[in-house]
Amino acid sequence: MNMTEKTADSPTDGSLADYAKTLPKPEPTVFDYDPITVHGKMAYLAGQIPKRDGGIVFSGLAGEAVSLDEAKSAARLCTEQALAWLNHSAGGLDNVERILRLKCFVAHADGFTQISDIADVASGLLGEVFGAAGRHSRAVLGVKSLPRNSPVLIEMTVALRQPVD
Amino acid sequence: MNMTEKTADSPTDGSLADYAKTLPKPEPTVFDYDPITVHGKMAYLAGQIPKRDGGIVFSGLAGEAVSLDEAKSAARLCTEQALAWLNHSAGGLDNVERILRLKCFVAHADGFTQISDIADVASGLLGEVFGAAGRHSRAVLGVKSLPRNSPVLIEMTVALRQPVD
Amino acid sequence: MNMTEKTADSPTDGSLADYAKTLPKPEPTVFDYDPITVHGKMAYLAGQIPKRDGGIVFSGLAGEAVSLDEAKSAARLCTEQALAWLNHSAGGLDNVERILRLKCFVAHADGFTQISDIADVASGLLGEVFGAAGRHSRAVLGVKSLPRNSPVLIEMTVALRQPVD
Repeated sequence: MNMTEKTADSPTDGSLADYAKTLPKPEPTVFDYDPITVHGKMAYLAGQIPKRDGGIVFSGLAGEAVSLDEAKSAARLCTEQALAWLNHSAGGLDNVERILRLKCFVAHADGFTQISDIADVASGLLGEVFGAAGRHSRAVLGVKSLPRNSPVLIEMTVALRQPVD
Repeated sequence: MNMTEKTADSPTDGSLADYAKTLPKPEPTVFDYDPITVHGKMAYLAGQIPKRDGGIVFSGLAGEAVSLDEAKSAARLCTEQALAWLNHSAGGLDNVERILRLKCFVAHADGFTQISDIADVASGLLGEVFGAAGRHSRAVLGVKSLPRNSPVLIEMTVALRQPVD
Repeated sequence: MNMTEKTADSPTDGSLADYAKTLPKPEPTVFDYDPITVHGKMAYLAGQIPKRDGGIVFSGLAGEAVSLDEAKSAARLCTEQALAWLNHSAGGLDNVERILRLKCFVAHADGFTQISDIADVASGLLGEVFGAAGRHSRAVLGVKSLPRNSPVLIEMTVALRQPVD
């Protein structure tokens, strides 16, 4: 969390390092690619789906098997996975200089119109955690399907303060 | 406009600064994210939808509520919004060194097959405005839905000549 | 191919330059955009579809007109086109420092659930060719349609060892 921009609903009242301890364990990928690529002062996150403890927590289409509230929870978990990987592989959350770009893909039923509300959960969490450094450009896309039948997938591009090794 | 590569159908006969005056007002975002993130010599545009004067001008699926011609107009307006934000927040259009990448997402009806024709409007406009600096890599994707029921969303990644502040 | 990480199923037993000779001819784009944008030490590939000898080899939806095996072959050809462009315009395959990010879009029939299996072909090939430098972050998205009715489109972002001119 950005210490100078705390708000009442900030995830923690402590430091970014303290907040990082509350994150879920970063979940590995299951094939020949990486959950995050760090190169110079940039980090490229893979598309994060709502995984925890080795399994996917939400599956199905938003507006069908997955309610709006569940899809929002999924977006939060995707974002937490991204943060967990940044913490693990990009020099810790304190090394985040700026969240540059966020993409939120939502797999949804016909007629579902609340994809931006789902992305707002991700954008809001990044603002709570990083303050101004968490503000980002964003695109939200309603798609047909996502890996493992996930309702939400979130991808981020992040600028770092210092290269990692 | 690139003064050395003017064509008969260039948006203006004058400078990039003159052209910028003809652009629509850049439309703000409605949640906790930014329409453009500028970092070092890079600008990351948020997904632009066809907004003008605070409202969305086209809504519905291409090939259904939105005709091909209207979807092309939407793509033009999305591109103009991106240019308006570059002009406003990235040091002016003269500070654009290269349009690196464009993504065009089209929400369309079943059986609609002209998504590339819609993206061509965006690519063509960038070439008219910037000449060789406007040439970019591109991906065009047909999706299920877009924010605010927009038929088109355009995202760009841009290299700048100089950092902004 | 990374000479230090050869595997039995590596595309060639020789150098990256030898492997490059086995790639299909890079196919040009048909409108006012570029198949690859090289800027500084970065290369941004356009969305590659399965083209060869001026035509598209696979068209239709995965799980409908295009079988899973055909979609996998399409993903391989998309990846080979990307490699052919890197070889042609980015200083040769030896100039690839790291594949930073891969996006795989699959246009598929209702109920098709194997989009990640299709992307695995692309990820696997990059690992075979480049070894550790081919490991990348990845997102896989199931979409409604792709240009020229392609079942697969692959986009990459690549870090280079040296700028190209």
